[in-house]
Amino acid sequence: CKNPSTVTANDFYFPGLHVAGNTSNAQGSRVTPVFATQLPGLNTLGISMVRIDYAAGGQNPPHTHPRATEILTVLEGSLEVGFVTSNPNNNHFTKTLYKGDVFVFPSNAIHYQRNTNWNAPAVAIAALSSQNPGAITIANAVFGSQPGISADILAKSFSLDVATVNYMQSKF
Amino acid sequence: CKNPSTVTANDFYFPGLHVAGNTSNAQGSRVTPVFATQLPGLNTLGISMVRIDYAAGGQNPPHTHPRATEILTVLEGSLEVGFVTSNPNNNHFTKTLYKGDVFVFPSNAIHYQRNTNWNAPAVAIAALSSQNPGAITIANAVFGSQPGISADILAKSFSLDVATVNYMQSKF
Amino acid sequence: CKNPSTVTANDFYFPGLHVAGNTSNAQGSRVTPVFATQLPGLNTLGISMVRIDYAAGGQNPPHTHPRATEILTVLEGSLEVGFVTSNPNNNHFTKTLYKGDVFVFPSNAIHYQRNTNWNAPAVAIAALSSQNPGAITIANAVFGSQPGISADILAKSFSLDVATVNYMQSKF
Amino acid sequence: CKNPSTVTANDFYFPGLHVAGNTSNAQGSRVTPVFATQLPGLNTLGISMVRIDYAAGGQNPPHTHPRATEILTVLEGSLEVGFVTSNPNNNHFTKTLYKGDVFVFPSNAIHYQRNTNWNAPAVAIAALSSQNPGAITIANAVFGSQPGISADILAKSFSLDVATVNYMQSKF
Amino acid sequence: CKNPSTVTANDFYFPGLHVAGNTSNAQGSRVTPVFATQLPGLNTLGISMVRIDYAAGGQNPPHTHPRATEILTVLEGSLEVGFVTSNPNNNHFTKTLYKGDVFVFPSNAIHYQRNTNWNAPAVAIAALSSQNPGAITIANAVFGSQPGISADILAKSFSLDVATVNYMQSKF
Amino acid sequence: CKNPSTVTANDFYFPGLHVAGNTSNAQGSRVTPVFATQLPGLNTLGISMVRIDYAAGGQNPPHTHPRATEILTVLEGSLEVGFVTSNPNNNHFTKTLYKGDVFVFPSNAIHYQRNTNWNAPAVAIAALSSQNPGAITIANAVFGSQPGISADILAKSFSLDVATVNYMQSKF
Repeated sequence: CKNPSTVTANDFYFPGLHVAGNTSNAQGSRVTPVFATQLPGLNTLGISMVRIDYAAGGQNPPHTHPRATEILTVLEGSLEVGFVTSNPNNNHFTKTLYKGDVFVFPSNAIHYQRNTNWNAPAVAIAALSSQNPGAITIANAVFGSQPGISADILAKSFSLDVATVNYMQSKF
Repeated sequence: CKNPSTVTANDFYFPGLHVAGNTSNAQGSRVTPVFATQLPGLNTLGISMVRIDYAAGGQNPPHTHPRATEILTVLEGSLEVGFVTSNPNNNHFTKTLYKGDVFVFPSNAIHYQRNTNWNAPAVAIAALSSQNPGAITIANAVFGSQPGISADILAKSFSLDVATVNYMQSKF
Repeated sequence: CKNPSTVTANDFYFPGLHVAGNTSNAQGSRVTPVFATQLPGLNTLGISMVRIDYAAGGQNPPHTHPRATEILTVLEGSLEVGFVTSNPNNNHFTKTLYKGDVFVFPSNAIHYQRNTNWNAPAVAIAALSSQNPGAITIANAVFGSQPGISADILAKSFSLDVATVNYMQSKF
Repeated sequence: CKNPSTVTANDFYFPGLHVAGNTSNAQGSRVTPVFATQLPGLNTLGISMVRIDYAAGGQNPPHTHPRATEILTVLEGSLEVGFVTSNPNNNHFTKTLYKGDVFVFPSNAIHYQRNTNWNAPAVAIAALSSQNPGAITIANAVFGSQPGISADILAKSFSLDVATVNYMQSKF
Repeated sequence: CKNPSTVTANDFYFPGLHVAGNTSNAQGSRVTPVFATQLPGLNTLGISMVRIDYAAGGQNPPHTHPRATEILTVLEGSLEVGFVTSNPNNNHFTKTLYKGDVFVFPSNAIHYQRNTNWNAPAVAIAALSSQNPGAITIANAVFGSQPGISADILAKSFSLDVATVNYMQSKF
Repeated sequence: CKNPSTVTANDFYFPGLHVAGNTSNAQGSRVTPVFATQLPGLNTLGISMVRIDYAAGGQNPPHTHPRATEILTVLEGSLEVGFVTSNPNNNHFTKTLYKGDVFVFPSNAIHYQRNTNWNAPAVAIAALSSQNPGAITIANAVFGSQPGISADILAKSFSLDVATVNYMQSKF
């Protein structure tokens, strides 16, 4: 904690969400976070915000937030979004969003977004119900952990042969 | 609650935040809410979103949210924003925000925003840490309640004469 | 935290709520708090207590507690009490309380009490649902903040002219 | 829940805590509660209040509140109060309170109060951090349950012979 | 907190719950805890586990957990278990459990278990909804506190004579 | 809710966790739950229990619990267990557990268990910090949702070709 007498308006301020994030990466997306790490004044306040940029055809791959619900609105372009409910139904709820549309991803549900346009970028603003929501990218946690999960466990879990799992693990 | 088997993606979807709200009113601002009233799928999820439009020189007057912190980012234009801490210090933290700047209003602090441009509108997106954050506009609650608070209580509270209080109460 | 082995009964004890507070001030009231600042043993326990003294005709002006509901009982005299609900209704619920009456002010609602007797003091005991409830006196936060909120923002918010706002701001 | 449009100030009001409770009983005390059962407007608000009357020499015997901390102040007379910490220390913190003294009983600690004056009654006001705090009077729960706990379990637990336990159970 | 970079799998690991606890004591039972004190990695995670061993005819005497519900399953032998509801009913819910039976003791209810077999030990595994649930053994807190509660308070509370209370207090 | 007057000890009781679950399935494991669905008395109590049976070489594949931490102890056999931390580290914490060992899976972390013995079954008891913890089996949610997530999204997410994704989706 800061000494309260030294707190100023700047402790509640973070600039720069109008700047596009760099989407030159394998998934073609970039999350610019405003969490308590970036803005310490958020501590204990139970909310945070992100800007998400999507290259043409880019995607924010399936992930969860272990401590937060997410609400998202599209600023530019259009997005295919979805989340999957828990066992035993694993219902996949999906929607195509256009500028000004709002969508909610319930806490801990696996969810994703993809830019539906292969010729232009897309931009979204989202808020999360924690100052420190965390994120678990499913592919990275399952196939890219350090050290790796035993390939035969993953092979049986995902109906794959061990060689394919080994190949996938080499990619993260 | 809906029967879970009838839930669809539309229960998590709300369109239209790209549409400017009508700011032809005394304060020159309009809040377009996406709360649980507008989007029932938000229930229990602990988050919501609003679009705020400001006419040239318009303002969102001092108010509180009894159940939520607010995080705001400017989409267009510039805003003078501020909040005041509790007794005994009543510190006023204020900042001028430009496109892409983010600011946080801690839960229950009296806060406001004003468009600093007298020639052009401004737009912000904000999120709140409750699906039902509520709002108390200070002037409306204090001087516009139904029925009114005794004018002599308000006169003594605000260092006003009773005639001025009566005048103010007639305005709400 | 204290070292647990040094905790004694005195850590849960605070004397002196039978002593009348000094009400020689502009509002004619005095709150004597037993919060975690005064009684550190309250930390994490989620409750606190205050004594409120009212001079003849004195009042505890409109205020909120950002982290607590308040329950109050009258020990001596009689009080006009009230609170106002949130937007859009701003309903004013008010009651005259006599010795032994109990009233509840819901968390974050703007509320007040006034001694209805111009010839004798009144006394109340209240409890709050936090060890650190906080208080925001509306007039002080809005018109007495340091530094002041722009007078033209307040003038438009409260349907006042700027000169009246300037006068009010000079009073805090 | 009531229909919000039918809520009035009376939903937040409970009269009569100035009236002494009837202490003509074995323990010589009476708790007059203002819980959600007595004042439904307390629901969800997380606080409640009681008046406790003590006959000369009367006591409020050892008990717990399963859902609340209690803060108490003496209005008349003097009280010996105490609570016991959990295993393994079982520290007994005790204090004699006089008019205006405040004491806190942490959530779920076994605690009691006794009027230290054998010639005059005493009165306290206490608040609890729940609208429905509950109470477990230790003797009644352990020796007066319906049906009774096996006497040999209680004999071994309390270092008593079975005949004494049988006698104690017959008293509740 | 540990520095996150030094956390290993061992911080989430505790060995040895297959080892029988020593039940050579007055009550004939032993609780082997896995709380945050024993396994610091449990901090903030809101759960813990215990093994309970019962000698032939042994018992875990009436007690409460001030911060947790308990769920128990029998691994070996059979147990008479029970808990008592709060005032005014003090209902005693009791059941004899055999291997594989599960029972729940609601948060803060006074509860106990006893081995119903006088010729063989019994074993249970239980989990509690806090990493630091605490325990208050009723007899120890009431009759064995340091210093003791006044014998005349306990005599009146439990319908005993002072000599019996003095005797009981000497046993703890 | 049941009418309180009809509640009995059976509302807190669930028999049969000594019975081995049927592990004749693709993963070679079976979870026998005692959640609020199976034992309604658990409602609001914030805890639950499961028995997990593992065939020789069987596994409980990677999954999360959206509302609970899990604490597990091995009753028979030995288990390889692990969980993965969130971005950006994705640390894999893993341990081989033997009879009587305890391990904790933090809330929402992806985790798994596997019987390390190819010749004998294994059994564990686990508790979860919610009466309704939920479970998301990663492979089923990502590759087995209804309807399926677009194969090209999954191909890019997991570094697979679309044909392999189509094959995997056909397996659930």
